[in-house]
Amino acid sequence: MNIALLPGDGIGPEVIDQAVKVVKAIGQKFGHKITFKEAIVGAAAIDATGEPYPDATHEIAAASDAVLFGAIGDPKYDNDPKAKVRPEQGLLLMRQKLGLFANVRPTFTFPSLVHKSPLKLDRVDGVDFVFFRELTGGIYFGEPRGRNEQGTKAFDTNVYSKHEIVRLARMGFEAAQKRRKLLTCVDKANVMATSRLWRETVQELAPEYPDVKVEYEFVDAVAMRLIQWPKAYDVLITENLFGDILTDEASVISGSMGLMPSASLGTSIKLFEPIHGSYPQAAGKDIANPLATVLSAAMMFDYAFDLKEESKMISDVVNQSLEEGYVTEDIADGGKSYKTSEVGDWLA
Amino acid sequence: MNIALLPGDGIGPEVIDQAVKVVKAIGQKFGHKITFKEAIVGAAAIDATGEPYPDATHEIAAASDAVLFGAIGDPKYDNDPKAKVRPEQGLLLMRQKLGLFANVRPTFTFPSLVHKSPLKLDRVDGVDFVFFRELTGGIYFGEPRGRNEQGTKAFDTNVYSKHEIVRLARMGFEAAQKRRKLLTCVDKANVMATSRLWRETVQELAPEYPDVKVEYEFVDAVAMRLIQWPKAYDVLITENLFGDILTDEASVISGSMGLMPSASLGTSIKLFEPIHGSYPQAAGKDIANPLATVLSAAMMFDYAFDLKEESKMISDVVNQSLEEGYVTEDIADGGKSYKTSEVGDWLA
Ligand SMILES: CC(C)[C@H](C(=O)O)[C@@H](O)C(=O)O
Ligand SMILES: CC(C)[C@H](C(=O)O)[C@@H](O)C(=O)O
Repeated sequence: MNIALLPGDGIGPEVIDQAVKVVKAIGQKFGHKITFKEAIVGAAAIDATGEPYPDATHEIAAASDAVLFGAIGDPKYDNDPKAKVRPEQGLLLMRQKLGLFANVRPTFTFPSLVHKSPLKLDRVDGVDFVFFRELTGGIYFGEPRGRNEQGTKAFDTNVYSKHEIVRLARMGFEAAQKRRKLLTCVDKANVMATSRLWRETVQELAPEYPDVKVEYEFVDAVAMRLIQWPKAYDVLITENLFGDILTDEASVISGSMGLMPSASLGTSIKLFEPIHGSYPQAAGKDIANPLATVLSAAMMFDYAFDLKEESKMISDVVNQSLEEGYVTEDIADGGKSYKTSEVGDWLA
Repeated sequence: MNIALLPGDGIGPEVIDQAVKVVKAIGQKFGHKITFKEAIVGAAAIDATGEPYPDATHEIAAASDAVLFGAIGDPKYDNDPKAKVRPEQGLLLMRQKLGLFANVRPTFTFPSLVHKSPLKLDRVDGVDFVFFRELTGGIYFGEPRGRNEQGTKAFDTNVYSKHEIVRLARMGFEAAQKRRKLLTCVDKANVMATSRLWRETVQELAPEYPDVKVEYEFVDAVAMRLIQWPKAYDVLITENLFGDILTDEASVISGSMGLMPSASLGTSIKLFEPIHGSYPQAAGKDIANPLATVLSAAMMFDYAFDLKEESKMISDVVNQSLEEGYVTEDIADGGKSYKTSEVGDWLA
């Protein structure tokens, strides 16, 4: 197993370190030969090379069997709307060049953390749904985009081809078949032409999955229902921009955002990353919570290598750390807490 | 005062009826001469004329001093992505033809209803913010939009001119000056060209409002923070599509979505409407909650006629109905409840 490590910015390197410890321990226990290759991305890469996703990094990622990714982003680039190169461009380039068209974002709860949810317990207890967000199309990449000559007018293009919708939707249908058999197609078909193509395409596919119940909901309605009654959902599929907004909204409801993993899947390469950001204020302090990255490594064993036992062992040890309170400060509830590196050692 | 009444679909006519009773009572009490002209819009208008916003309706609205609008939408049009005319087109045409470029959506709590919020009390108690959503631009109206010849590819265009951003942003800055002096500009400047123009334009305007603190946040971050800590916000400004999603998300946090009013403002015409939808299941049953529409009439006296006393009298009587439990079933908590028309009579 060749794993590419792309720690990125902020707390990225620290949390990736802990995931590596755990992956190595699993490799030893199960007798897998695992090699790691590290590469730079994001602000770290801009600082070193001027490019947010250098070719050398792409080569390492493209040649790997799976990518473990940390986080990118640096506040020094955020409030400069004229900046020519931004760290996030590295992320977008990486998604595009690796063909990672499906972002898989589960939302579930941990019994020991659900009290941290901003939602009342009866709303959130037992929530269990998963978003499939289209990740390489839509307004993120559509052309034309830019300004008129005088700079007084700006434009972006949202564009979707049927085949982009089909391959994402099929993943959603298949996931629903293995879960509670409910698929929600999230769009804005009452306004957008792209959304009408989404809805039409999903309607055409539905008869192939007769065991799956399909619901169509507008994005604004889903933004409400995710808060009002998140248990209503099982599998949700949606376009890139709606997915960006809704998966982040969804991430706060469980009370354990710092623990949520994700996968980005393509035709060949698969990438795994925590959903939290680069959290620059905490960088270098050995206080960041590594569990989301460790759980992303668990997803990796499942989705990239189809090794369920290895995957489950990682999830189990994470649960154990929560039960025994071997956790970082952010989830210690004022009780005894441990450093990032200590938690990583303990898990490994 | 010439008021155009556009009841629309579903429960629209019933709730507008109650607002009219209240407005008439205010007119009598304060000696205002108020005349009403009614017109059709939405599915009701399609059924009658084939057009969702007929010219005759536009003439009445354009000649009015203020428009009271109910709701539009009929499920029979929702799941037919190929339908040529949809009720929502009436809404969009109306916004565009009347030049209603700013949608004002306050979120606040009622002490007697805050327990209905899906959020924990400490998160939501005392929440008080207002969105200024751009309403006549962006991806809702941008060209080109549609399909390629084979129908296998669809596209939409998001477009903003500087002057569209300036006029909306100035409303936000001015509102912030009268409130807690915090303005949040919501965009996706790390991805979208239009968002970078938004951010740049707001940055240019900010020095003219030195007493207002301006924050810039990405739309995905706001989708999270609205749930985690909604008290962080005072005035938020944003583009049309982000506003659509976020104002609906915001509407559920107070626990009293059925009570939230809104205003849509243009250079001359001003329109007032409840934020709830046409709720077709309840239509004709005399059970719909009329308070959001009545509070929209309160906003009308304030924003369209600058009559604060009249406006306050309406808000006060709504509060009184809540305190005395003279309410519809949806907020009666299983206690005694009243019909839509009875609540309207009582308020009047
Ligand atoms: C950083 C940004 C470009 C990115 C996105 O919008 O996709 C992020 O918000 C995410 O969801 O991974
Ligand atoms: C019905 C629809 C076209 C409309 C919109 O998207 O603007 C509605 O959701 C709203 O917010 O008023």
